[in-house]
Amino acid sequence: MDSYQETVIRVRYAETDQMGVVYHANYFIWMEVGRVEYCRSKGISYRDMESNDQVFLVVGEVNCRYSAPARYDDEVQIRTSIAEVNPRVVRFEYQLSTVKDAKPLATGWTKHVFCGGDKRPAKLPEKYWEMFGIPLPAASR
Amino acid sequence: MDSYQETVIRVRYAETDQMGVVYHANYFIWMEVGRVEYCRSKGISYRDMESNDQVFLVVGEVNCRYSAPARYDDEVQIRTSIAEVNPRVVRFEYQLSTVKDAKPLATGWTKHVFCGGDKRPAKLPEKYWEMFGIPLPAASR
Amino acid sequence: MDSYQETVIRVRYAETDQMGVVYHANYFIWMEVGRVEYCRSKGISYRDMESNDQVFLVVGEVNCRYSAPARYDDEVQIRTSIAEVNPRVVRFEYQLSTVKDAKPLATGWTKHVFCGGDKRPAKLPEKYWEMFGIPLPAASR
Amino acid sequence: MDSYQETVIRVRYAETDQMGVVYHANYFIWMEVGRVEYCRSKGISYRDMESNDQVFLVVGEVNCRYSAPARYDDEVQIRTSIAEVNPRVVRFEYQLSTVKDAKPLATGWTKHVFCGGDKRPAKLPEKYWEMFGIPLPAASR
Repeated sequence: MDSYQETVIRVRYAETDQMGVVYHANYFIWMEVGRVEYCRSKGISYRDMESNDQVFLVVGEVNCRYSAPARYDDEVQIRTSIAEVNPRVVRFEYQLSTVKDAKPLATGWTKHVFCGGDKRPAKLPEKYWEMFGIPLPAASR
Repeated sequence: MDSYQETVIRVRYAETDQMGVVYHANYFIWMEVGRVEYCRSKGISYRDMESNDQVFLVVGEVNCRYSAPARYDDEVQIRTSIAEVNPRVVRFEYQLSTVKDAKPLATGWTKHVFCGGDKRPAKLPEKYWEMFGIPLPAASR
Repeated sequence: MDSYQETVIRVRYAETDQMGVVYHANYFIWMEVGRVEYCRSKGISYRDMESNDQVFLVVGEVNCRYSAPARYDDEVQIRTSIAEVNPRVVRFEYQLSTVKDAKPLATGWTKHVFCGGDKRPAKLPEKYWEMFGIPLPAASR
Repeated sequence: MDSYQETVIRVRYAETDQMGVVYHANYFIWMEVGRVEYCRSKGISYRDMESNDQVFLVVGEVNCRYSAPARYDDEVQIRTSIAEVNPRVVRFEYQLSTVKDAKPLATGWTKHVFCGGDKRPAKLPEKYWEMFGIPLPAASR
């Protein structure tokens, strides 16, 4: 897909570890920030989707490849896009790089299952299809 | 009060920061571990108290004084006691030290308001009084 | 002191807990964000101060009083100021509130000891005095 | 490989999120706990390896598949093994399950590059080969 959204975060001291760089698990927190901003840019408030419509994106699998360490106080750009989507599952992809010199830091993806209020798999309501880039069935158009 | 409970945790890599020591906010997570184990030692499952009886200990104020840094892979002892308690409020106190040489690391306290399912202040149900060390009213004994 | 700096962060999903609100220890991470931005607004890069001049602000004591819970996706304003400072110690104060309706969330403070590369107390180098608001001795002016 | 090590952690309140289950990034912190205990069981102190021999296991790639949510206060068993290893790279594998009823929670792996004090790739010193399960060259036996 050709659509992506860019968000910038600044590395917090708490996110570093004694190796002097960002602890690897924190990249998944940044991906979540990217994901939420991606949704917002498409007109979806993830918060409202959860609280008003009981739609939850339960995490099924995640992956991250690290190419260079992020450091304290760096500004990190998160480029988020949707790699795969259907009314059951969505997979986001992320490219992380430094703002200052566009150095690639990591690439990753997270796969989510659309779930209902009981946190069990449930088809995404049609009102969200367009915003997630799912083609509407002919009858709905 | 003379009753306390001791728990030991081991410092995780994720808990350190680039200063090479444990990031200060993590001590409050350890205090929570101490608090939960204190409750367990008194026969209270904090989990059940929340899910079965809708009793929540909402944090009102916290404090920590640091005397020496905890380091990666250190075993840290958390000594937890109740400093003040009544059916509305409980204040826990904590002393943290290294297991290896009993070096004091920090002392802290956390004050909690007993709340109900709506997260608003609510008197602690009498069934929990004894375990929290609150004297029962004469009629209930 | 009458000088303060304001920073805004947005609550991350990772920062919430099962009570449906922000976990209390995370406020200290936000205070750190506020502190760093306060320094930046005074022309001090905390990162450079550490790496170039081996000046470390080691945390000595922290405190936070919570008045209302922060929630997922809220924008939180952190108003940071210096409450006390001398060449040995600095105490920052923080007021946290929601951006949307200026609702007070918490107030806190953190006390730091200026330390050198060995992480032991060391007088703050004079070049930083003015920026921290410490009056320079007559001879240095 | 047929050798594995088992560690148990208990889910902390701080590790949950507002979905009422453990936030997904925390599994990587638990894997780190498993990894360190795996090393300890083989006679390797990861702390000493870093501080005495300047050997660092820099994270290159990580993956986790989630099958069921871990919940607050659950005891979680982490079964750690080495899936691949040579003097340049090691890949650990993890199986996470509940202690109470052996319910599978997640499987994951983390790939690490052995690095030196400058955090650049460096062949693992031979003294550690046996403990990581790397066959020693004939001449060294």
